[in-house]
Amino acid sequence: MSVTAAAGFRASGVTAGLKPSGKPDVALVVNDGPRRDAAAVFTSNRCKANPVLWSERTIADGKLDAVVLNSGGANCYNGPEGFQTTHASAELVAELIGGGAFDVGVCSTGLIGQPLDRPLLEAGIRAAHQALSDDGGPDAATAIMTTDTKPKQAVSGGAGWSVGGMAKGAGMLAPGLATMLVVITTDAVATSGALDAALRQATRTTFDRLDTDGCMSTNDTVFLLASGSSGVEPSAEELAAAVKAVCADLTQQLWTDAEGAHHDIEIAVAGAASEDDAVSVGRAIARSNLFKAAVFGNDPNWGRVLAAIGTTDAVFEPQHIDVAINGVQVCRAGGTKAGDPADTVDMSPRHARVEVDLGAGASSATLLTSDLTHDYVHENSAYST
Amino acid sequence: MSVTAAAGFRASGVTAGLKPSGKPDVALVVNDGPRRDAAAVFTSNRCKANPVLWSERTIADGKLDAVVLNSGGANCYNGPEGFQTTHASAELVAELIGGGAFDVGVCSTGLIGQPLDRPLLEAGIRAAHQALSDDGGPDAATAIMTTDTKPKQAVSGGAGWSVGGMAKGAGMLAPGLATMLVVITTDAVATSGALDAALRQATRTTFDRLDTDGCMSTNDTVFLLASGSSGVEPSAEELAAAVKAVCADLTQQLWTDAEGAHHDIEIAVAGAASEDDAVSVGRAIARSNLFKAAVFGNDPNWGRVLAAIGTTDAVFEPQHIDVAINGVQVCRAGGTKAGDPADTVDMSPRHARVEVDLGAGASSATLLTSDLTHDYVHENSAYST
Repeated sequence: MSVTAAAGFRASGVTAGLKPSGKPDVALVVNDGPRRDAAAVFTSNRCKANPVLWSERTIADGKLDAVVLNSGGANCYNGPEGFQTTHASAELVAELIGGGAFDVGVCSTGLIGQPLDRPLLEAGIRAAHQALSDDGGPDAATAIMTTDTKPKQAVSGGAGWSVGGMAKGAGMLAPGLATMLVVITTDAVATSGALDAALRQATRTTFDRLDTDGCMSTNDTVFLLASGSSGVEPSAEELAAAVKAVCADLTQQLWTDAEGAHHDIEIAVAGAASEDDAVSVGRAIARSNLFKAAVFGNDPNWGRVLAAIGTTDAVFEPQHIDVAINGVQVCRAGGTKAGDPADTVDMSPRHARVEVDLGAGASSATLLTSDLTHDYVHENSAYST
Repeated sequence: MSVTAAAGFRASGVTAGLKPSGKPDVALVVNDGPRRDAAAVFTSNRCKANPVLWSERTIADGKLDAVVLNSGGANCYNGPEGFQTTHASAELVAELIGGGAFDVGVCSTGLIGQPLDRPLLEAGIRAAHQALSDDGGPDAATAIMTTDTKPKQAVSGGAGWSVGGMAKGAGMLAPGLATMLVVITTDAVATSGALDAALRQATRTTFDRLDTDGCMSTNDTVFLLASGSSGVEPSAEELAAAVKAVCADLTQQLWTDAEGAHHDIEIAVAGAASEDDAVSVGRAIARSNLFKAAVFGNDPNWGRVLAAIGTTDAVFEPQHIDVAINGVQVCRAGGTKAGDPADTVDMSPRHARVEVDLGAGASSATLLTSDLTHDYVHENSAYST
C-alpha cells in the first residue's frame, strides 16, 4: 500500500513528540534504487516554508534518495534557525542512509511561525530510520496527518510495475500549482524529465482542481520518486495515466475529508470558450462563501452561483447560462426561460453536483469544493493550525 | 437626516408587502430641483440585476428626477417579466411626479431568481408617492433594509449646502466598483460631470475598500443626485470631500453591521510599491477564511496573514514583511527577527487592527472586513437571501 506498493522503497512512521497529541509525526520514505529519478511540484504561494525552499534546490538535478516528512509544525516563518533545522534533518537522513543531503527532500506541516524542535525531530528521524520496512507505507501515511481524519493512500500501475502514493491535507486546500504533502513512488524506469511531465500533467487536473476553502498553503509539495526496480519502462502515456490515477484517487480522499464539510460539492462547468475559463468559473463558485453556506443549509441557491460567475472574466453572456443542481435544471438561459422548481432539488446527500453550461464554447472543467459549515468555523477558530 | 438633509428632496418609505416579514420595503426619493444633475456607479458583476441594467441607461444623460428602491426581491435573473417590472415601476413614478421614465433610477435588493410581485410593488409606489415628505429620509433608509440590523444614514456638507445619504447592505459585500444600495443627495449646484468625478473618487477609497465576505452583488448601485437648491456651487475639492465624508461614514456603518460578525477587522497595509499592491494584499487577507475564523477564535494567527499575502502578485520579499495585530508586533522581517509573543495580543475588543508593512515602497491602503463566525454561517445557510 501507499509509498511502499512499488518495489525498491522502504518507509516508516514514528512518534517524535512534535505533536502535543502524542500521535505519529515523523515519516521517512527511502528509495533503494537501482535508479533515483525524481520530480516535484511545489506551492505557488510566494511565502514559502523552509522545507519548500530546501526541496526546490534538492530536486533541481532530478535525483532524490529519500524524503523525510514531519507533522506538528510547518517550519515556516521562524527565522534562520528554521532553515537550519530543515538542512540538519536532510543531513541526518543522508548520514543514516549513506548519501548526500542534497538528495533528501524535506516536507513539514503544522502551525506557521513556530520553532520546530530540532532535538525531537532528529531523534524522530533516527527512530524512523530504524523502523524502515518494505510495508511501512501505511505508517508513513499516518505520521503525516494533521486534521485529517484518516490516512490517504492510493495505488495504480501497469503490467509488472506500480505507482503508489500518500497524501495529507484537510484545510488550507487551494493549491495553485501543487498541493498539500504528497509522496508518490514508482518502480518504473523513468527519467526525471518523464516523471516531471507525468506529474505536472496529473496535478494540473487533479489536485489543482480541488479548492475547499480558497486558502493556499505555504508548504504544499508533491514528490514523485522512481526506483526503476521493476525493470519496466512504460510509455509516457502509460506513466502519465498511472500517476494521474494515483493523484485523482488521493484528490478524492482529500476532498471527502475536508475540514468540517457536510457536503462534497462537485462543480462541473461546460460550454466554456476555453479550459481556463471553465476553471476560473468553477473556482469562483468554489470560493463563494454565500453559495457554500447555502449548500450547508440544503438550499440550492442558484442566484449565488450566477453572482459568482459574474465576477470572472470568462467569455459568456448572462442570458445563455444554464445551471442544474443535483440533476434539477433550476436555471435556464440565465432565467430568461423558466427553470424547474428549486424546491424539487434533493440536497440531503453528502455529494452535491452543480452543473453550469456557459453556452460559450466546447471546453469544460470540474472543480471540487466543500460547504461552509459551523464545523469548519469551529475547527479553524477553536484551534491554531 | 439621510437623503432629505439636503434641500430640494423629498423621500418616503412604506410597506408594500414584498417582504414576508411585513416590514417596510419600498422607498422613493424625489428631486424637486431646480436642477436634476446626477451620477452613479454600479456593480462590476457581469451578471447584473434588471434594475442595474435599467439604471445604467437612465444615468447616461446625467439627469435623474427620482430613485425608487425596493427590498424583498433583487429582481435579478427572473426573465423578461423582471425587466418589464423595473420598466413599469419607473413609468409609474414618472407618471406620478410628472416626468419621463428615463429620468427615474431603480434599485432592488433581496433574493436572486425570484419574480417580483408587480401589483404589490406598484401599489407600494403609489403609497410611497403619497407619503413623500421633506423629512422622509429615515423612513426611506428603513425601507431598503434587508438583513441590516439598523438603517444607515450620513450627512456632510459646507457653508450653506449639504450632502446626505442612505445605504443598505450587510452581506454579499465585496463591491468591485460601487456597492450595495446607496442614494446620496446634495443641494449643491454641480454638473453631472462634477458629481461623477466626486462620486468615483469617493467610492474608490470607501465602499471599494470594504470586503466582508468576498461575494460581489448583482445589484450594487450608488446614486448621487444634486438639486442645486442651495444656490451654492462648491469647488470640485469641496464637493469631493463632502461626498467622500458621507461615503466613508456609510462604509463604517455597513462594516460594523456585517452579517454575523463578532470582530470588525481593519487591515492597514503600508510599505507597498503601489496603492494597487496595497489593496490586493489587503483584499487577500480580507478574503482568507482561515484568518477570519482565527480572529473569531481570538487567535492572532499571523501565519495565515503571510499565507494570504503570498497568494498575491504584489511586490515584496517574504523576509521583509512586518505584521502587527492590535498593536503587538507579532512578526518582524518575515520571522527572520524575533516577533513579540502572540499571547500578549488582546483580541477581545470587537475592533481588530492588522498592520502589514511590506517593506517595498511608500504606498498604503486600508481594507475593512469581518471575522468568519457561526452566526455568519447560520445567517447564510438557514435563510435564503
